[in-house]
Amino acid sequence: MRDVVIVGVGQTKYGEHWEKSLRSLVVEAGLRAIEDAGIYSKDIEAIYGGNMSAGSTTFQDHIGPLIADFTGLAINKIPALRIENGSASGAAAFHEGFAAVASGLYDTVLVGGVEKLTDVSMEEVTEVLSGEVDREWELFNGATLASLAALIARRYMLDYNVKREQIALMPVLSHKHGSLNPYAQFKNTLKVEDVLNSTMVADPLTMLDCAPVSDGASAVILTTIENAKKWKKDSIVKVKASSVASDYIALQSRENITRFDSVIEASRKAYKMAKLEPKDISFVEIHDAYSIFGLISLEDLGFFEKGKAGKYLEEGYGNLDSKLPINPSGGLKAKGHPVGATGVGQIVESILQLRKEAEKRQVSDPKNALTLNMGGSGGSAIVHILEVVK
Amino acid sequence: MRDVVIVGVGQTKYGEHWEKSLRSLVVEAGLRAIEDAGIYSKDIEAIYGGNMSAGSTTFQDHIGPLIADFTGLAINKIPALRIENGSASGAAAFHEGFAAVASGLYDTVLVGGVEKLTDVSMEEVTEVLSGEVDREWELFNGATLASLAALIARRYMLDYNVKREQIALMPVLSHKHGSLNPYAQFKNTLKVEDVLNSTMVADPLTMLDCAPVSDGASAVILTTIENAKKWKKDSIVKVKASSVASDYIALQSRENITRFDSVIEASRKAYKMAKLEPKDISFVEIHDAYSIFGLISLEDLGFFEKGKAGKYLEEGYGNLDSKLPINPSGGLKAKGHPVGATGVGQIVESILQLRKEAEKRQVSDPKNALTLNMGGSGGSAIVHILEVVK
Repeated sequence: MRDVVIVGVGQTKYGEHWEKSLRSLVVEAGLRAIEDAGIYSKDIEAIYGGNMSAGSTTFQDHIGPLIADFTGLAINKIPALRIENGSASGAAAFHEGFAAVASGLYDTVLVGGVEKLTDVSMEEVTEVLSGEVDREWELFNGATLASLAALIARRYMLDYNVKREQIALMPVLSHKHGSLNPYAQFKNTLKVEDVLNSTMVADPLTMLDCAPVSDGASAVILTTIENAKKWKKDSIVKVKASSVASDYIALQSRENITRFDSVIEASRKAYKMAKLEPKDISFVEIHDAYSIFGLISLEDLGFFEKGKAGKYLEEGYGNLDSKLPINPSGGLKAKGHPVGATGVGQIVESILQLRKEAEKRQVSDPKNALTLNMGGSGGSAIVHILEVVK
Repeated sequence: MRDVVIVGVGQTKYGEHWEKSLRSLVVEAGLRAIEDAGIYSKDIEAIYGGNMSAGSTTFQDHIGPLIADFTGLAINKIPALRIENGSASGAAAFHEGFAAVASGLYDTVLVGGVEKLTDVSMEEVTEVLSGEVDREWELFNGATLASLAALIARRYMLDYNVKREQIALMPVLSHKHGSLNPYAQFKNTLKVEDVLNSTMVADPLTMLDCAPVSDGASAVILTTIENAKKWKKDSIVKVKASSVASDYIALQSRENITRFDSVIEASRKAYKMAKLEPKDISFVEIHDAYSIFGLISLEDLGFFEKGKAGKYLEEGYGNLDSKLPINPSGGLKAKGHPVGATGVGQIVESILQLRKEAEKRQVSDPKNALTLNMGGSGGSAIVHILEVVK
């Protein structure tokens, strides 16, 4: 397999884009990535698009060619495919783009992620997004994704004697960083009491434990190290690991619902591929779709002992100047969660950080980054490790 | 890139499976492929699933992990991703599986395609399936996929002086072969008059020019040539070419609507990759979602001069004993068109033919096969060329 590097990134602001369609969002992010890479459209040989729900929310499928068409790339008749993996659709598209360049099938590809959710009602969005857990075994029996997250939170609090306040530290952290990110949906900071006193969604989780409904798009350009040198890029970041894992989709089939076996397996493979250990990671972008998912993931990624993530956050871990900065972008909670764009957006943030272009939210001198994008209630997990080459 | 071979195939009958769910269909096909390959579940390192509309019709997304779970493969926490590319979702999943093995990322993968359409009304199915053309520029103005096909047919008849009867030869051919295929949805043969006198869908195309609404699943196992030898397979078929191309998604943007530039580009690349020419191909499985798509594709694949496909069919081309057998499976029209399964099913049929296990519909001594799976009205095209190694 050949080395794969990232030479361009682009994104829209995440939020409620009433005035923009799915296609205009992805074009905005895509063209910014091409411009950032300083290449021509003709250099792009294939497109991988991450999206979960365009068929259900905007009644548009086959969005690979749609992206190619509206970014002006259809003129070259290039391959353009959509990858869907629930909330991890973005990282899944990145994984496929990575494999395509690593294999030698293509030299330069555009990976884009996009979601447009505000075209339908909140009830419909909840219905559609819950489609990433088991429709027949979970949803038909009344369990939404939020209620499954709440179930996990209750068990976790009980098994590990974790206080509700500790779980609330996750959105507090994400909002602290989101307030510094011009691309973030929410710029307000939160206190633990704000989270506890917010509208109840599924006991014990309140509205402020849950990532918002967002529109948005993100894009990156992947290529070979030879191309990056030829194009005289000042900054080259290598994909050290790209790893996907799945688990039983319904909670009922899992041995233990307070850990995500998909995260454990995906990160195990990623560390092996990158020849790195958790202690070597400069910072992480994790999947805090629900506060509890963030905490458990940090443990399953090997950063903290089981049941201790909240305690570490209390001690200051996660902050930009700490030993392990977490979600410098603001995470899914504050930057926003335009589902198919999320995983690609985590990579975009990582590149900005590794290039030291993250301004007020810049992590001090990072060497590498780990991103975790998760599908459903942990039915899948995708881990990427990126490292600065120059 | 490493050589990639196919060592196992499985499929369900295509048709109206009122008693089976999406998950049971894909499990049926998947387990048959594993059994056919004579390997163990633990040998499978990743799953690529092709599906267009599960989110819209059965309200289930994230079906990669769902497939892994219900085929019993989640126990190994393997990667499982869904690929969507409209009607070409199946071939798109195969392309991604191919790239994964070719790259060295995985050694053995399961590629499955599935669609479950009979859970919703015919009106809803038409709405959902039309989502593979341009929703904003075509559908909102009243054009369904069928009416776009009719527009293409009218222009084609006019430009090339083609008779309506010649277009009807395509479904007649597909039904002739479908009648010999135990997995086909329709077993009846047709006459040209039957096609002409059938219910009008979009003038000049009648119901019998259009592929049916189908449920079904297909699956194949891809691996390295070393594994195939180690497993002592009697028959080894190599993927000589796997090629994807896109075009402007809406007809209005194309220079000429009587040719599919996506098909021309995908096949040009495939022939180059396989070092073969059209004259070297033993038989083809093409995408006759509409009769007119079949005819035009045969020309764009380089088999017949422009406007002459119907004339060649009149002369007997396409029959099992002719110089170029076309759709020995019965094609999309007679075998059926469970959208996401279709492209994988074309590969399954090709393997059965190349192994000489196609019984009554066996093509005489084939050396290789070409399959064409198309998305929308030609917004994308995917070509595969397979060749017998032993």
